[in-house]
Amino acid sequence: MEQQDKIILIGAGNVAHHLAGALLKAGENLCQIYSRTLDSARQLGMKTGISYTAEANEVYPDGDIYIFCVSDDVLPSIIKTIRMPDNALLLHTSGSQPMDVFKSYSKHYGVIYPVQTFSKKRELDFREIPLCVEGNTGPVKERIKKFAEKLSGKIYEIDSAQRKELHLAAVFACNFPNYLYQVAGKLLEDKGLSFAMLRPLIFETAHKVMLLNPEEAQTGPAKRGDESIMNMHKNMLKNDKDLLKIYTILSEGIKETQDKEETGDQKISQDTIDMPTLW
Amino acid sequence: MEQQDKIILIGAGNVAHHLAGALLKAGENLCQIYSRTLDSARQLGMKTGISYTAEANEVYPDGDIYIFCVSDDVLPSIIKTIRMPDNALLLHTSGSQPMDVFKSYSKHYGVIYPVQTFSKKRELDFREIPLCVEGNTGPVKERIKKFAEKLSGKIYEIDSAQRKELHLAAVFACNFPNYLYQVAGKLLEDKGLSFAMLRPLIFETAHKVMLLNPEEAQTGPAKRGDESIMNMHKNMLKNDKDLLKIYTILSEGIKETQDKEETGDQKISQDTIDMPTLW
Repeated sequence: MEQQDKIILIGAGNVAHHLAGALLKAGENLCQIYSRTLDSARQLGMKTGISYTAEANEVYPDGDIYIFCVSDDVLPSIIKTIRMPDNALLLHTSGSQPMDVFKSYSKHYGVIYPVQTFSKKRELDFREIPLCVEGNTGPVKERIKKFAEKLSGKIYEIDSAQRKELHLAAVFACNFPNYLYQVAGKLLEDKGLSFAMLRPLIFETAHKVMLLNPEEAQTGPAKRGDESIMNMHKNMLKNDKDLLKIYTILSEGIKETQDKEETGDQKISQDTIDMPTLW
Repeated sequence: MEQQDKIILIGAGNVAHHLAGALLKAGENLCQIYSRTLDSARQLGMKTGISYTAEANEVYPDGDIYIFCVSDDVLPSIIKTIRMPDNALLLHTSGSQPMDVFKSYSKHYGVIYPVQTFSKKRELDFREIPLCVEGNTGPVKERIKKFAEKLSGKIYEIDSAQRKELHLAAVFACNFPNYLYQVAGKLLEDKGLSFAMLRPLIFETAHKVMLLNPEEAQTGPAKRGDESIMNMHKNMLKNDKDLLKIYTILSEGIKETQDKEETGDQKISQDTIDMPTLW
């Protein structure tokens, strides 16, 4: 029987939380969880039943795979604090850190970047999450790919430059829309209305682009070129300079895309994924 | 047996398309569809099997309910062109037009504003769409409410000022996020990557706020205060001034909300709706 790789998880935040679950579900040999914050380490350790520590010098030094799920800004400094065998496979899950951050620490390293937003409170099917893999050599990349395939059905091989762009695109596709949901909720709250009134709209807006391209799905006053409504909206926002700026620049963007579309300048990929219809 | 109200639908765009389906599904007596554009009138007429016209003077002058589903900017001028009985109930579906646009034309008028984004290509369950109703008198409002209840299970009574705000919030919750999906797709396309890679992320981002508040759901570099990533992103966008502006202002917004949250300044409604888990 093949000996299973001993896996050490470095980090106990949102990504680590979901990855730990996926590893266990896939029957992988997750041996230890490390976080600099004892509470976080304990929380994930207790949840998974895996041994945990908040002391860097207690991290098992004989692991086969070390997966770093920590913030980009602390990744380089945390790598330094962990003793690892020369021949261990070192991985991180960052969208923006180069693979070479591991260069001085092992001959086998790479990246598994999950294109998803993670919150501890939300359960996710990890097998549906696109995982972008990269490895420092061909064989290492193959090994990482095989490993990733145990966790997800959607594996993409991309390089560091593409991954950086993907991460930036993900900010536009996820973090910024979510912030706009916050803005919308705040506007409603100020008039005694509930955020719940927008939920079907938000859901449908996202659901639409599972099948259509966002260009085809675009609606609203800017798309229609309805200047009188846009002026009214700007007037309603005149006491909130920041929101007014957001409204103006995004509306201008929609109008420009619209103009390009009409002259046939713009199109994006037609691939769609199958989504069940909820309503 | 009670005589059914004769309903005339004015408009054949996205909203009219879905509303016509909902009326027929509810067993309502939709008699005629009018659009200034013959092709649109014919398309919806053929789809529903309802008689249609593109001539304002051919609109039946003996309807009981006239529902105006037309762009805000043409609504006032289109109302003028239609002959209608003094005692007809006049409704529009606009988020921003005041109810009083009908004042000179009937004693019974109001609004049914559906809080949703409509595209002809997408099927929707109209019963799940929040309908915001308003009427010019108490009894008229009751009549409109009863009528709306045949179409949807989610009826809200709100006034014109609230409706305007709701419409503005809907632009932030729907039109702008969809535009950001476009931006994300364009960024990927430039690097030979497919928009499809972002679909699970977009879907989960929306799905999260079906249960969580957007404040709780927020993730990303701005939320974490990760300045090095944000600076890298800004650098990647340095040749596209508009995107750079969008990135900067939305990131600033997230950081500010984050600061407020930490001092306990901000919260929005905790109501959630039940959503099936897809993954």
